[in-house]
Amino acid sequence: MSILVVGSVAFDDVTSPSGSVKNILGGAATYFSLAASYFTQVRMVAVVGADFGAEQEEVFKRHSIDTRGIERAEGKTFRWGGSYTDNLNEAKTDYTDLNVFESFHPQIPAEYEDTEFLFLANIQPTLQANVRRKMNGVRLTGCDTMNYWIKGAHAELTETLKLVDVLLINDTETKMLANETNLPRAAHKVLAMGPKALVIKHGEYGATIFFREGAFGIGHHPFRAPALPIEEVKDPTGAGDSFAGGFMGYLASQKELSREVLKRALFYGGVMGSFAVERFGTERLQSLTREQIEERFQVFRELTHLE
Amino acid sequence: MSILVVGSVAFDDVTSPSGSVKNILGGAATYFSLAASYFTQVRMVAVVGADFGAEQEEVFKRHSIDTRGIERAEGKTFRWGGSYTDNLNEAKTDYTDLNVFESFHPQIPAEYEDTEFLFLANIQPTLQANVRRKMNGVRLTGCDTMNYWIKGAHAELTETLKLVDVLLINDTETKMLANETNLPRAAHKVLAMGPKALVIKHGEYGATIFFREGAFGIGHHPFRAPALPIEEVKDPTGAGDSFAGGFMGYLASQKELSREVLKRALFYGGVMGSFAVERFGTERLQSLTREQIEERFQVFRELTHLE
Repeated sequence: MSILVVGSVAFDDVTSPSGSVKNILGGAATYFSLAASYFTQVRMVAVVGADFGAEQEEVFKRHSIDTRGIERAEGKTFRWGGSYTDNLNEAKTDYTDLNVFESFHPQIPAEYEDTEFLFLANIQPTLQANVRRKMNGVRLTGCDTMNYWIKGAHAELTETLKLVDVLLINDTETKMLANETNLPRAAHKVLAMGPKALVIKHGEYGATIFFREGAFGIGHHPFRAPALPIEEVKDPTGAGDSFAGGFMGYLASQKELSREVLKRALFYGGVMGSFAVERFGTERLQSLTREQIEERFQVFRELTHLE
Repeated sequence: MSILVVGSVAFDDVTSPSGSVKNILGGAATYFSLAASYFTQVRMVAVVGADFGAEQEEVFKRHSIDTRGIERAEGKTFRWGGSYTDNLNEAKTDYTDLNVFESFHPQIPAEYEDTEFLFLANIQPTLQANVRRKMNGVRLTGCDTMNYWIKGAHAELTETLKLVDVLLINDTETKMLANETNLPRAAHKVLAMGPKALVIKHGEYGATIFFREGAFGIGHHPFRAPALPIEEVKDPTGAGDSFAGGFMGYLASQKELSREVLKRALFYGGVMGSFAVERFGTERLQSLTREQIEERFQVFRELTHLE
């Protein structure tokens, strides 16, 4: 099956305790696509500028990612600069130049309309909702968002949440969205806003999925996947989008969307996030094999498995 | 088998978003003993004042806890007052009256000398080391400590760590002790200081155990146990000590100390911590059945178990 991602493609400058890189390919849709490409056919809708050339295009081509939905606009591609100090969980944004991304209005190519899975990366909620409404045939829609929209576009985001099946956000975003400090209580409030499942990403502690009663099978228990303790986190940029790529990519590769499949997807999300942070930018995500992914899946499994 | 715990018995005043309680039985050794009592025979070494009476004594007696090692000194029992606001992970200490605990010099009754397992709750490191040296026949020693000793008694703590088998501390304490911000790297540094295993408690995210190469079996992979998402945390006081009680108590109930047993112990630690926080003080720990503990163990197992 195939998955369509709508989101940002960017050039990043990143500084972390492990070093500095400049002008590397980044953006949510980039990390997502590369991670998902190991599981399923990926289609992208994004916007880039004239500085996006054959070299960048080639990265996607090597992963058989369909880039026909990437619009080339006049001007420069979105640029982001960030740095990490000792606390690798939080990036300090050095600059954000939206450039062509500022007036991004996602256009879905006709050839994409039959796509079965959809991922709305972190963009303005009304744009997310518009894309979702155009893709009426999808089996499952995943969605990301951020504090900026939770605070600044709450009403619009509320409308979007009615249209998505799985929301993937972090602890802080969940609590802010629900206006509730207890995490499981916040999770239930968010599920009442629309999504059938909520994936809360805990960074170095893994992730938890909460299900709406009756969604994807029987029962109401949440499920947790661990994260691997990693001795050298070179660059946390894109970890969440890579997580989403592993999670959604695995789902799109499965016939049935049962709870068991969603649980395994949560592990694959962790696996792809753990690879992403091992090198700067998308370097590690560009050079994986499916065998390495399965090996690490087993390591994740062993990490919490009692005999 | 039996386990000896050396640590504090206290009276606590606690305020949390769920309410307020005054003068309730608390202290690290209290939480530890009650949690461990569901698994094994517990012996206590502690000090109390004249305000510790039949009512408190009775709590331990009902759990067949041996209190012959509790010294009755002139003066008042240790008193602690703390409050929790929305962030239940961190207590604000309102007051600490050490009282008789200030001059606590643990004495081990002759009848306790054959105890197989030892837990050194959070007290001054040299006192911990002295107790450990007197208990030469123990099979396994567990140990807790805190920031106060890591900063203020580093040299003494370093000596103590050479004498313990398993250290149980939290993320911040691990990083501070190792002077290293990356958690797995910090864990390896702490293991190099003496312990064969290090249990890092992550609060609401569970716990990770790191093993020294070759200790308790083959392999070098860490292991993670989840924590249960709990909708109403009434009082987090004693969660870490209850975790230690479940962990150590389960170990003391086992013939072999294999990696698999230590992994299960990590789950039982989480189980007992999860019960402790559901009510104020030791209320929940006083009223459990072994059946309820096994039921929750299964819930913890399901929480991360892939078919």
